[in-house]
Amino acid sequence: MDLAAGIDIGGTKTKLGLVNQSGECVVDMNFRTKEYPDLDEFLDKTIASVHSLVAQVGSPVNLLGIGIGAPNASNTRGTIEYAPNLYWKGIVPLLEKLNQRIDVPLKVTNDANAAALGEMLFGNAKGMKDFIVITLGTGLGSGIVSNGSMVYGYDGFAGEFGHFAMLPEDGRVDGLGVKGGLEAYVSATGLKRTIMYLISKHTDDSRFRSIAFNDLHGEEITEAAEQGDPIALKAFEYTGQILGKALANFTLFSQPEAFFLVGGLANCGKWIFEPTQKYMDQHLLEMYQGKVKILSSGMAEKNAAISGAAALIWSAQ
Amino acid sequence: MDLAAGIDIGGTKTKLGLVNQSGECVVDMNFRTKEYPDLDEFLDKTIASVHSLVAQVGSPVNLLGIGIGAPNASNTRGTIEYAPNLYWKGIVPLLEKLNQRIDVPLKVTNDANAAALGEMLFGNAKGMKDFIVITLGTGLGSGIVSNGSMVYGYDGFAGEFGHFAMLPEDGRVDGLGVKGGLEAYVSATGLKRTIMYLISKHTDDSRFRSIAFNDLHGEEITEAAEQGDPIALKAFEYTGQILGKALANFTLFSQPEAFFLVGGLANCGKWIFEPTQKYMDQHLLEMYQGKVKILSSGMAEKNAAISGAAALIWSAQ
Repeated sequence: MDLAAGIDIGGTKTKLGLVNQSGECVVDMNFRTKEYPDLDEFLDKTIASVHSLVAQVGSPVNLLGIGIGAPNASNTRGTIEYAPNLYWKGIVPLLEKLNQRIDVPLKVTNDANAAALGEMLFGNAKGMKDFIVITLGTGLGSGIVSNGSMVYGYDGFAGEFGHFAMLPEDGRVDGLGVKGGLEAYVSATGLKRTIMYLISKHTDDSRFRSIAFNDLHGEEITEAAEQGDPIALKAFEYTGQILGKALANFTLFSQPEAFFLVGGLANCGKWIFEPTQKYMDQHLLEMYQGKVKILSSGMAEKNAAISGAAALIWSAQ
Repeated sequence: MDLAAGIDIGGTKTKLGLVNQSGECVVDMNFRTKEYPDLDEFLDKTIASVHSLVAQVGSPVNLLGIGIGAPNASNTRGTIEYAPNLYWKGIVPLLEKLNQRIDVPLKVTNDANAAALGEMLFGNAKGMKDFIVITLGTGLGSGIVSNGSMVYGYDGFAGEFGHFAMLPEDGRVDGLGVKGGLEAYVSATGLKRTIMYLISKHTDDSRFRSIAFNDLHGEEITEAAEQGDPIALKAFEYTGQILGKALANFTLFSQPEAFFLVGGLANCGKWIFEPTQKYMDQHLLEMYQGKVKILSSGMAEKNAAISGAAALIWSAQ
């Protein structure tokens, strides 16, 4: 059986799986990234895990390669560079060191690009040539596909919309210190910051007046919106307004047929999709009106991060 | 001799020429677009002009095709759509109608994309795979090349940076009504608007206090800066600050190796290049620092608009 390994390296967990041509993850496992502060031990563990997954498949496996999604990864150099959420500092020669351990094709890119490739091969972007995936987790990531190809940029760091200074310079500071950076507003964390801001600004009664920032979770904000909590409702409207205007502006770059909203904040469903659509439509230039969709991921039933990483290998077959 | 025809359709003039493999325009001519309000007459004149140019070349010509740069052009549909500066309204089926008149390959794209292709084939972007050309004329246009290919978008309208709402919503209104749109600040016209704004704001003595907006020209602003006129100096600093910050943000999209500044405002030379570079460097994320150049066109000696349009044909050989 032809299978590609997909590995998603995150600050907390590393997830691995073997993925078939339909994007289905036939076996998978995960371990805690933080248990391996030594890079060589992490890589030994990773390769041992791939072999163990191969052994778990009942029939003989033809391993086509290993695709890896990782923060701050350069596809051209095969490196992870200065990733703030990982132990291994500086420039990590990831593929070079993996090559010493296993003899199959290896590819790496950042997690948002992997998500975009996964959507194109296995999800809701099948058949599309121009689209952008926006990942809304702790931060905001983006993977851009233009004319059927990933936009990687000069050395692999294209698609960093999270740090776009859309807001005034006296706005919130994002994770990289950008003033008014988009992800400080539009991300799972940004939504929490907005709840705090609205509590400071308005006098409405709200359950969030008795919850500390660190105890606040996205699902709770959705639940509160469903119960009509005025601060939760305002928070989604505020977030959708900023994201909608941003998407209208991003359309000026590569004129995508669709934006896909995926990850934590996207799981809030209509609460985030509806205001985003409304404000995007308000701000789109006439020449784009009616041509840009906002869609949800088609990878929800699949193991999105693993299948996306494996798409690096499947897209090259 | 193998030659490609290049045609640049502008609101005022239509320029045509025959271009060799090195991007040199061996014969050229132009006529006033406005003398042909009837589309069919315009197209007849255009094709007659191409035949006339072919006849002017001493030796036999193998005409490889005709490339056209035009405002609001869709490469996928071969149309010009709702171009505000042209007589022909609505959707103009340009290539379909030209096909009825001549039997050679025909291609069309917007003028900024043609400029980018010209720069890649014949100019200073030779050998680059990721770069962005910014045209600074009446408005601000942009042509994006990613991994060696033009970014055209879903139906040909990618690369409209001029309408990016970088500035606050109570900012200037641009040519398409966008509040705070970039080209209202950064373009030949934007520079003139900035002169008026600075006269309203400051009390410095300046030659521009005795020149009306409609009588003001870009060359004069450069000349004034060279003579130390304080309003002219402030105007370039202000423009470079906005453009530099915008380029730092646009880097987040496709991570270009270089931005090329071309056209009217770029002819102001160091007065615009130096502040733009300074402010871009201040705003670039650390991962991009030292990797993004701001360059001038390599097409100055060539007939840039004609050679760029012809590059549509040469790039397909």
